[in-house]
Amino acid sequence: MINSKVFFENIKQKSPLIHHITNYVTVNDCANATLAIGASPIMSAQTLELEDIIKLSSALVLNIGTMDKIDAFLQAPKYANKHNVKIVLDPVGAGATQKRNEIIDEILKNSSFSVIKGNLSEILSIAKVSSNTKGVDVSEKDKNINIEEIVNIAMSLAKEQNCIIAITGKEDIIADSKRAYIIRNGVAFMSKITGTGCMSASIIGSFIGANDDDLISTVIAISSMGIAGELAYEKTKNLGSGSFRTALIDNLSNMDEKTFERYNKIEEFINIK
Amino acid sequence: MINSKVFFENIKQKSPLIHHITNYVTVNDCANATLAIGASPIMSAQTLELEDIIKLSSALVLNIGTMDKIDAFLQAPKYANKHNVKIVLDPVGAGATQKRNEIIDEILKNSSFSVIKGNLSEILSIAKVSSNTKGVDVSEKDKNINIEEIVNIAMSLAKEQNCIIAITGKEDIIADSKRAYIIRNGVAFMSKITGTGCMSASIIGSFIGANDDDLISTVIAISSMGIAGELAYEKTKNLGSGSFRTALIDNLSNMDEKTFERYNKIEEFINIK
Amino acid sequence: MINSKVFFENIKQKSPLIHHITNYVTVNDCANATLAIGASPIMSAQTLELEDIIKLSSALVLNIGTMDKIDAFLQAPKYANKHNVKIVLDPVGAGATQKRNEIIDEILKNSSFSVIKGNLSEILSIAKVSSNTKGVDVSEKDKNINIEEIVNIAMSLAKEQNCIIAITGKEDIIADSKRAYIIRNGVAFMSKITGTGCMSASIIGSFIGANDDDLISTVIAISSMGIAGELAYEKTKNLGSGSFRTALIDNLSNMDEKTFERYNKIEEFINIK
Repeated sequence: MINSKVFFENIKQKSPLIHHITNYVTVNDCANATLAIGASPIMSAQTLELEDIIKLSSALVLNIGTMDKIDAFLQAPKYANKHNVKIVLDPVGAGATQKRNEIIDEILKNSSFSVIKGNLSEILSIAKVSSNTKGVDVSEKDKNINIEEIVNIAMSLAKEQNCIIAITGKEDIIADSKRAYIIRNGVAFMSKITGTGCMSASIIGSFIGANDDDLISTVIAISSMGIAGELAYEKTKNLGSGSFRTALIDNLSNMDEKTFERYNKIEEFINIK
Repeated sequence: MINSKVFFENIKQKSPLIHHITNYVTVNDCANATLAIGASPIMSAQTLELEDIIKLSSALVLNIGTMDKIDAFLQAPKYANKHNVKIVLDPVGAGATQKRNEIIDEILKNSSFSVIKGNLSEILSIAKVSSNTKGVDVSEKDKNINIEEIVNIAMSLAKEQNCIIAITGKEDIIADSKRAYIIRNGVAFMSKITGTGCMSASIIGSFIGANDDDLISTVIAISSMGIAGELAYEKTKNLGSGSFRTALIDNLSNMDEKTFERYNKIEEFINIK
Repeated sequence: MINSKVFFENIKQKSPLIHHITNYVTVNDCANATLAIGASPIMSAQTLELEDIIKLSSALVLNIGTMDKIDAFLQAPKYANKHNVKIVLDPVGAGATQKRNEIIDEILKNSSFSVIKGNLSEILSIAKVSSNTKGVDVSEKDKNINIEEIVNIAMSLAKEQNCIIAITGKEDIIADSKRAYIIRNGVAFMSKITGTGCMSASIIGSFIGANDDDLISTVIAISSMGIAGELAYEKTKNLGSGSFRTALIDNLSNMDEKTFERYNKIEEFINIK
């Protein structure tokens, strides 16, 4: 069982600076999610100040969503590695275009990451398992892969990349090379607004930026995001997606170990063949 | 009378991918509006992956609002034409600066569009009728042009450009070269928040991306946006523009043929001189 | 005592066009805040149309937050000076990186401003008083400087730069070279969402764009923003930061001289040593 109290407290006490190099679609959501959980966001992809900002930061969130900051995508991870700053990689749309695959390959070749988080199609693409990404969402075909197989893919990739792999979906799989967790929080309605995936990366960044254990940090982060979604849906299901979005941020700003302990649906995955 | 049922159902069933090359001010609103109506947004202006993304897409929304993606503005319509992907052009601020006019002229010269949507000043600028654009809003002078004249301008431009022309305003005019519709949905308060015009283009893109009839798709899209605004205003008029914005997205996410049939104020314009 | 009526009325009547060259994180909030107070926003950093847009504008808001529009940062103030368009400078993260300091130095050397608004660390950096900026927030060390000292720094810098200096914080200090005001509106929770500082600059731009007196305009703008925050917090404190953000915009859209007269906590600072 996870003792989440210290994880939440460390964010509140340290208010870690989380550097985001991210897309222009959901960047505002990421900033508000980071603040909501108790960390401090900074957004800049200006290469002339990249090292200065990374040196001040507790974690870097790298999201390639709009593919408009390629110089920063390539340089920032190197600076982060140099200064021992943890990185969350969110390889949005991996597999969707040749250029995205090239950029991701180059980033992965040159730098190491603390967490790589993506939906199943994105992670399959990175793991070089055949995938059929349609835009930035999971393809229908990929939805049929069973959970044991997904866990195996996550653990293999975790071993290969020496980092935490987080695969988000109906169930979320969080794994390192030796252990895997399955999280059953969240609601389907979360895909009815933009930014829930991006905000998840910001929440992961906030937890790993303030805590030592990256695996458990990522598990708590992803579960917290799912809980925030569940409670938001419960409250706004008769209203619509605009109200849902507002309530999701509300719930992130109220998230604490008490809410987490009450609602989390996390189990360690022990039946891997 | 418009039978809207199949138009709404096609979006829900196909969840068409709508590629946006758009401004960084309202891009998040566009993504949420697209999701709300049942389609799937993707935003990237990276020229190195433009053709890959356009090939996957059911429609392209091209909005020049912040004028920061000129290479993509010029290339994307050519790729879309090449791959038979429909385009909605939102020529934000047409007439406001010399550079915008040049870009729009070049885009129109090189590519063909399914729908061009703008406010009256923008459309007058494109139609080379004298206009006095003030920033991105309609000038006071242009507000005095009578509706018959506007319909004639829309139909002439529709003929010239071989596409649907949508002129938004107190009344919205949607026309091809032979038919015109006037829509009396919407409330003035919609101009109290940013993004309603941009979201309209996303909703048009969603409808034409999932349906064959571009004229009726555009009519339903513009009317639906207006209805969403009316219902949002009814609910939040004692609150303010922040709540209005949230309620507008709520109403888009609840929009269906039932709501549309009940509230639409659409008439075919048959008295053109 | 400030007679605010005419200041609010002038915005409503003139609906001044406020040109923003600003970051991509909070740009949507800035647009909605500008509309909420009754002005008209336009956002473009495209250098090829900069002068055309500035000529149409009543004020320019220059915010260097994401450091991605450096050509525009350097050119726009010159055009604004040339065409007698007032400028609000929001030097986000001044002191945080060497590159930001260089850009700010160059901007200040080449152009004159109507208002420079920042948090204490940013203003200390500009005033070349030693500062310890951590990212875009005020450092702990800077929080210990007493208010008389802050007022003296503000007035000295106001004299040096021949403009209004606005230092935001628990108390806000607004000063020109001869007078200073202290504002005690606002709530700490405003720092729990992104964009309150950026929106303040938009509100200042809206007031100075429609009114002659830049000092009193800035005082009313900053106080109004604080009042909007207080009322939003009162209403949403049991909900969370998402609802707070919505209510903040609501209150800006309802702000008028009546609300201002009732809630403002402004005093002229007369005990400077």
